[in-house]
Amino acid sequence: MRLRNIKNAKDIIKNSEYVVKNLEFYKGKWQTVFNNDNLIHLEIGCGKGTFIHEMAKKYPNINFIGIEKYESILVRALEKINEEPLPNLRFICANAENLNEYFNKEISCIYLNFSDPWPKKRHARRRLTSPIFLNIYDSLFIKENLIIQKTDNIGLFASSIKELNNFGYTFLDVDLDYNSEDNICTEYETKFRNLGVKINYLKAIKKC
Amino acid sequence: MRLRNIKNAKDIIKNSEYVVKNLEFYKGKWQTVFNNDNLIHLEIGCGKGTFIHEMAKKYPNINFIGIEKYESILVRALEKINEEPLPNLRFICANAENLNEYFNKEISCIYLNFSDPWPKKRHARRRLTSPIFLNIYDSLFIKENLIIQKTDNIGLFASSIKELNNFGYTFLDVDLDYNSEDNICTEYETKFRNLGVKINYLKAIKKC
Repeated sequence: MRLRNIKNAKDIIKNSEYVVKNLEFYKGKWQTVFNNDNLIHLEIGCGKGTFIHEMAKKYPNINFIGIEKYESILVRALEKINEEPLPNLRFICANAENLNEYFNKEISCIYLNFSDPWPKKRHARRRLTSPIFLNIYDSLFIKENLIIQKTDNIGLFASSIKELNNFGYTFLDVDLDYNSEDNICTEYETKFRNLGVKINYLKAIKKC
Repeated sequence: MRLRNIKNAKDIIKNSEYVVKNLEFYKGKWQTVFNNDNLIHLEIGCGKGTFIHEMAKKYPNINFIGIEKYESILVRALEKINEEPLPNLRFICANAENLNEYFNKEISCIYLNFSDPWPKKRHARRRLTSPIFLNIYDSLFIKENLIIQKTDNIGLFASSIKELNNFGYTFLDVDLDYNSEDNICTEYETKFRNLGVKINYLKAIKKC
């Protein structure tokens, strides 16, 4: 995603009631953020937030947390929730590498939508389905691991299939031309679907 | 593949020294066919035989068996080996469903090249990577199972990934745009690569 720097992004995030701060404090007690014991789903790399905002509207009995490391992008997601507040949606500005410092056995599902493919072999460890990240995710999940990934990038998708399989995940679904009626598109996805690009999809589970 | 009926196909196969008959007799003793103890690789659905013929030339220390159920197609493969005899290549005219009646723990690798995708859900069991066939393959392999698949069909490929993963296979390689220098093309593959079609590839292993 192209990054346009937004003035005051830092301040906007700092002052937003929809962005959770003091992340270490909430480790193991994220249900207190939502004030209920509903399941919690994460989107890692939520971008401008269209997907997670629509998911939160569609599934009011699930709590959603959008994670975005770039402040200038996260403010776009905040514009949406400012316009249409949702009690079951919150955001954090964080790097996926540190998620095990902020969460402990309390997540039911992780969405990875159109993540950076890091196509070069020497950058493979930076892909969000590399063993480094799969290890981190292990400590976030409650009961069983559930990862849902969408990407148009065939290199990333092939890599994800191999890594998830090697890490002990079982595929509940694999689709190289995903067109479910239930699908909620990201901004990026809408653009590329309109160009006729095929979307790859997987749903993978691992027992803890 | 379009089937053009070839007169005398049955007789050509019956009289060919390169087609092994009395298959039940060789169960467990296929090394006697080749008169050595080299590894044995199978191609299930060898079609007109270009792939397995070239493989047998490239790897003289591996024994290859091409399996084709249609007599009229197998005779095309026989034309090649008649022209250029190879001691490490033999064919059988058989249905994959019966392979466990002809082989017992003596195969090191199975190639599935551009198999019939059977796209309809109600025909899924007929795909050569359905659990029915994976069960059959279990009894063919010596030491560990090794399956190498190529296909341009994304439905078949997604189904294979899910089934192999669910059946306990580990992916050594997954590629959604396979372009290895080592690749040997089938007739079908050459045609579709020339049209710009992407070839999917997987290499999966399972310990016995």
